Amino acid sequence: MTQQAFNFFKQSLQGLLIGLKVDKIPSYLGGTLGLIVQKFGGTSVANASRIKQVARKVASVFDSGTKLVVVVSALGDTTDRLIEMAHQISSSPSPRELDMLLATGEQVSAALLSMALQTLGYPAISLNALQAGIKTDNVHTKAKLLEIDTERINRELKEGKIVVITGFQGVTDADDITTLGRGGSDLTAIALAAALKADLCEIYTDVEGVFTADPRIVPQARLLKKISYEEMLEMAATGARVMQTRAVEYARNFKVRILVKSSFSESGGTLITGEEEIGVERPIISGVTFDVSEAKLTIREVPDRPGVAAKIFGALAQAQINVDMIIQNISQAGTTDISFTVERTDLRRAEAVLKEVCLELGAKGIEVDSEIAKVSLVGAGMRTHPGVAAQMFKALADQNINIEMISTSTIKISCVIKASEVNKAVQALHRAFNLALEDIKEGEEV
Amino acid sequence: MTQQAFNFFKQSLQGLLIGLKVDKIPSYLGGTLGLIVQKFGGTSVANASRIKQVARKVASVFDSGTKLVVVVSALGDTTDRLIEMAHQISSSPSPRELDMLLATGEQVSAALLSMALQTLGYPAISLNALQAGIKTDNVHTKAKLLEIDTERINRELKEGKIVVITGFQGVTDADDITTLGRGGSDLTAIALAAALKADLCEIYTDVEGVFTADPRIVPQARLLKKISYEEMLEMAATGARVMQTRAVEYARNFKVRILVKSSFSESGGTLITGEEEIGVERPIISGVTFDVSEAKLTIREVPDRPGVAAKIFGALAQAQINVDMIIQNISQAGTTDISFTVERTDLRRAEAVLKEVCLELGAKGIEVDSEIAKVSLVGAGMRTHPGVAAQMFKALADQNINIEMISTSTIKISCVIKASEVNKAVQALHRAFNLALEDIKEGEEV
Repeated sequence: MTQQAFNFFKQSLQGLLIGLKVDKIPSYLGGTLGLIVQKFGGTSVANASRIKQVARKVASVFDSGTKLVVVVSALGDTTDRLIEMAHQISSSPSPRELDMLLATGEQVSAALLSMALQTLGYPAISLNALQAGIKTDNVHTKAKLLEIDTERINRELKEGKIVVITGFQGVTDADDITTLGRGGSDLTAIALAAALKADLCEIYTDVEGVFTADPRIVPQARLLKKISYEEMLEMAATGARVMQTRAVEYARNFKVRILVKSSFSESGGTLITGEEEIGVERPIISGVTFDVSEAKLTIREVPDRPGVAAKIFGALAQAQINVDMIIQNISQAGTTDISFTVERTDLRRAEAVLKEVCLELGAKGIEVDSEIAKVSLVGAGMRTHPGVAAQMFKALADQNINIEMISTSTIKISCVIKASEVNKAVQALHRAFNLALEDIKEGEEV
Repeated sequence: MTQQAFNFFKQSLQGLLIGLKVDKIPSYLGGTLGLIVQKFGGTSVANASRIKQVARKVASVFDSGTKLVVVVSALGDTTDRLIEMAHQISSSPSPRELDMLLATGEQVSAALLSMALQTLGYPAISLNALQAGIKTDNVHTKAKLLEIDTERINRELKEGKIVVITGFQGVTDADDITTLGRGGSDLTAIALAAALKADLCEIYTDVEGVFTADPRIVPQARLLKKISYEEMLEMAATGARVMQTRAVEYARNFKVRILVKSSFSESGGTLITGEEEIGVERPIISGVTFDVSEAKLTIREVPDRPGVAAKIFGALAQAQINVDMIIQNISQAGTTDISFTVERTDLRRAEAVLKEVCLELGAKGIEVDSEIAKVSLVGAGMRTHPGVAAQMFKALADQNINIEMISTSTIKISCVIKASEVNKAVQALHRAFNLALEDIKEGEEV
């Protein structure tokens, strides 16, 4: 077989394999992907030596023949430092000027990473949001992505360059600089991966990926090789801090495959992808999460008549207070109790709003409990595997843990318990569902 | 007289006066200029409290009804700090990436000054080079200005805003960021003043203006109220450090009136303008300057035949070595001596180049003197006032100072002397020409 023919064969085979699963390309084929978008967070580029380390990591992927777009956050605590400077000047700096200021952070890291790559002998170029064609609306400090004009990026890629792009920022149609808000650099990377039809978006961070539980609480917690977008969204919404919900939603909508991995280790990371790619290997439960940031409010003896719930939650919505779980008791003697949870930071405001509403409705009163925790089980396998809820309640009961509220979705069950029992609950659930063991498949006994 | 009619009268009168001299608009008319471009250097915006101070200064001018464009440099030592970061990554960072990095410095100060103005209740907006339409060629780190598309700036001015613009930088036609090299922010301000047809360009710096001599050497040195572009160029070329030659040349070519003044005092500063505006008040001598950064080379007994000088200075030019003064002795016995000065930092390289040339030409040898100084008298009045040179040589002779080389232009006389005698020479010349006294006019005796 000639070298050319072999290459053709190799590429065809890779093409087939890429369609299936990235992490299964046999390395003896020198398996490469066409285009990868990589994103490095602030701690990954905190100083010159870490930037050089990132450059070596990028270079080694480029060496395998993959085209690369690299998105960077601002160095270490640069963004906080810039905000501090702004606050020395003004107690409420204008959002437009704040964006103008903050956007410099990523431009510094993009230029430095590009220099580091060039120093290693690799062709690299940094592009800021304007140069990269990242267009947003004009809602400064929390702008929405509108479109990415990839002309310049594609031109640089075609010239064989590694394209380093500033995360977190965009430009309006008037060329004003915007920023995308919290987790903005992840969003930049995923949006670029979508616009460029990249094969993969690698998010490098300071954790190794998504675990079956927080390893600080469950030392046996296992790194998940794969997780579906829906499961990741539920895990993020119920307390996992790996990725912002907004970025994962964007990835799901545009079918961008995400590999979350550590900048500081060689661990394989977690692939976040569509359920179709996870297929039959899907476990029943992917993980146990918890959240101690909420508080519970209970309104006692509300008259049980139409429009009451609308009145209560309408008033909270008008005050911009997000409500998470809601439970309404079965009516007794014409009245009922309504319980719900809010972010603890909103608790005082929520109480104030409700006092008026209670008076108006003739409810008996409001009870507040800020010492609660929410523990959740997340797993796409729940849909087809009944009995998970019962097993969860039993595991908690075995530990003498009382359940105060329950809420379910098709792939999640959450229980509100006492805050002091959260670690015990997470450990018990992780054990009860054997999450430390690999290869628990749907259909097998647990 | 109605208010409207009065305003019209006032504006007409101001218009007339603006055509003549800015600093003579009677303040009882509330004299204002249509548009001023102000530039604040790095020390003027070194920290939050200085930025607030600059904002108050800008605001007070805006209060008088003047439209304002404000150009800022990077905060304090930011540029040096960024260069240091680049050098931690690479010993020779690519010019394009260096520009991308350095340009963030001015964006930070523009955003912060804009916030400071807004906090004082003034409408302000910061624009970076792209937004301000500052177009350059693509010679990174020392780009040349090509044009300024003032559409956006004019739009913001029309909306009544103070427009704060990043100095030192521009963009290529591919939207790549460039920087203009040393003194670039002055150039930005002057170019903006030219493009916007501003009435005045105020350069705020850490000195009070242009003095008749360096006040550290001549305590009696007097601040010049006015100086012509040509004189300023000669003063800059002979050692005055107030403004870069390049910026003054640009101002002369586009007839931009510059007022150099201190950010830290209320002194009136020095107006740099065309000779026609200085008119009959022109002094014979504007100032005494000195330069101790040069060294002298002498080639002994060069054969005196055509092409010799071309050979010597051609070789130096090829090595990118700038030659300042050149003296060729009267020929004796078919040979001559040639002396010239170069920047001391180029001395070793110049010697190396010349050694080869001497061998080729059969010259006797090279002598080097790095302990020299150049003292210069600059004054447009010299053109019409003979005898200045003789008076200068006498003043130096009276102090027993030997003159080693002499060079003249129509408005300047320079003498090379021993470096150790430079202070004595500057003081003697300042005294001999009575420069401490005001109002020495052309035609009067000195």
